[in-house]
Amino acid sequence: MENLINKNILNEIDNADKIYNGVHNIRSNGKSISRVTSDNVEIISKENNSGLIVNVKNNVMGVTVHIPVILTNEDFTDTVNNTINIGESSDVVLIAGCGVHNSGINKTVHDGVHEIKVHKGAKLKYIEKHYAEGTSVSKKIFNTKTYIEVYEDATLEIELVQIKGVDSSEKYTNIILHDNAHLVITERIFTELYQEVTSNINIEMVGKNSSAQIVSRSVAKDNSKQIFYFNLDGKNKCSGHIECDSIIMNNAKVTSVPALSASNEDAELIHEAAIGKIASEQILKLMSLGLTEEEAQDTILKGFLK
Amino acid sequence: MENLINKNILNEIDNADKIYNGVHNIRSNGKSISRVTSDNVEIISKENNSGLIVNVKNNVMGVTVHIPVILTNEDFTDTVNNTINIGESSDVVLIAGCGVHNSGINKTVHDGVHEIKVHKGAKLKYIEKHYAEGTSVSKKIFNTKTYIEVYEDATLEIELVQIKGVDSSEKYTNIILHDNAHLVITERIFTELYQEVTSNINIEMVGKNSSAQIVSRSVAKDNSKQIFYFNLDGKNKCSGHIECDSIIMNNAKVTSVPALSASNEDAELIHEAAIGKIASEQILKLMSLGLTEEEAQDTILKGFLK
Repeated sequence: MENLINKNILNEIDNADKIYNGVHNIRSNGKSISRVTSDNVEIISKENNSGLIVNVKNNVMGVTVHIPVILTNEDFTDTVNNTINIGESSDVVLIAGCGVHNSGINKTVHDGVHEIKVHKGAKLKYIEKHYAEGTSVSKKIFNTKTYIEVYEDATLEIELVQIKGVDSSEKYTNIILHDNAHLVITERIFTELYQEVTSNINIEMVGKNSSAQIVSRSVAKDNSKQIFYFNLDGKNKCSGHIECDSIIMNNAKVTSVPALSASNEDAELIHEAAIGKIASEQILKLMSLGLTEEEAQDTILKGFLK
Repeated sequence: MENLINKNILNEIDNADKIYNGVHNIRSNGKSISRVTSDNVEIISKENNSGLIVNVKNNVMGVTVHIPVILTNEDFTDTVNNTINIGESSDVVLIAGCGVHNSGINKTVHDGVHEIKVHKGAKLKYIEKHYAEGTSVSKKIFNTKTYIEVYEDATLEIELVQIKGVDSSEKYTNIILHDNAHLVITERIFTELYQEVTSNINIEMVGKNSSAQIVSRSVAKDNSKQIFYFNLDGKNKCSGHIECDSIIMNNAKVTSVPALSASNEDAELIHEAAIGKIASEQILKLMSLGLTEEEAQDTILKGFLK
């Protein structure tokens, strides 16, 4: 039973088979339960199971590192503090999701801190999915703090996904871009019931010719609440683009606060945001093809969050 | 000499001839120096010259009310607290600029508070221009707080302009829109040298079918600083659109923080912002027509702020 739950959770936030067949560390209820390393990727436990040090050597190509976190204990807070180094000129994928199963009545809390350095010329794709399941009365809480430094000529692609079951979430992401560093962030958030999420993304473009692109899409249903802060700070010749779209339904509340700040005459910053409902024409079109109104809505929302 | 200065200032923030030939109150260094009222427009001084009560009756059409403020004393702070009522179904223009001439070395401060009620079905065009001149060492400081309520079926058009000479400015504008109330704001700001401006526009769309459109354009040169806060809060079926463009030059700093907040599923809010420099093709094109680089820049900036 425990193994089935774990497998299900791993598949929601990553892919169980790929995890076990690849370089990985699985943390379950605060302890490492499985680890595979390689010549190119070192994974070291910090003191008292407080987190991992992941070192990817220089010039490592095509490796995916999986460091999922599972929580199935209730009335439990797991604080994880990971330090990750992506070596110069490497090109790797890091998947660091967290999944919670709480079948009780108390709360489960994931507090995740990541410090990531993407060294000179390296390329990192960082994927972080949050998923929770269990009873409707138990609270599943996810808080993350992510501090990333992207060095010269390096590229970082981030996918932040929170699709299901998370009652409360505070995400703080701070990224510093050096000369010619490039960043693409894709954020997808869905909330329903009384769920609440706050996402704060702060990007400092200190490097010459650095660039950042953020695309954030969210759907807020029922009585859920979403707050987005984006801060794009251009301190050098750089370009930045934020695009955030939210669909609001029922009694949900969405606040989007993007800040553009330029202190260099060669900084070019653009922001576009929209909050609105699903276009009724889209729903009518799908209904004319035989879908019920609810099916039409679901189809549109899935496409929007894809 | 004093009269020439006054006339020049009045022409910068309004039109001296039109002021004297129309319904007006001119406040100079804290006191009313000229007033003309009409059957339809009442202008009353508050106690201790602390400001005006302007009452436009119901169904008044095509009247322009001028309430300029002039400051030519240095080391002087003029605090003005005006209360303005636009009667039901009236259609009027209100011009409430402030001009400062400071030929000394100390500071001149204008602290203006406006409370405006645009009653049912009325239409108001509200123009507020800020202008300062004098020695380069004296400080000309303009702070404004404007609280506006736009009632059912009423329309408000606002022009906020600060083009020249203002060293420091904090503008706070709060607007509440009731059922079917409509708002258009045009903001134009130019700063140079070490000038600083903070503009905070807060719009609450509490009424059904209310709408708001904000177009803000600014140019920041030299070492000047501009901070813009926009807050568009959709609490009912409503639509809102913010568009802010800033041109940044030299060592200037521009921060733009627009917040969209929707708590109704029929609220549709959009925001677009851009901070960047003048497109070099535009400059080259004008230079190919015989303009110097500086002339080309000036031409483009004037067009942008028009």
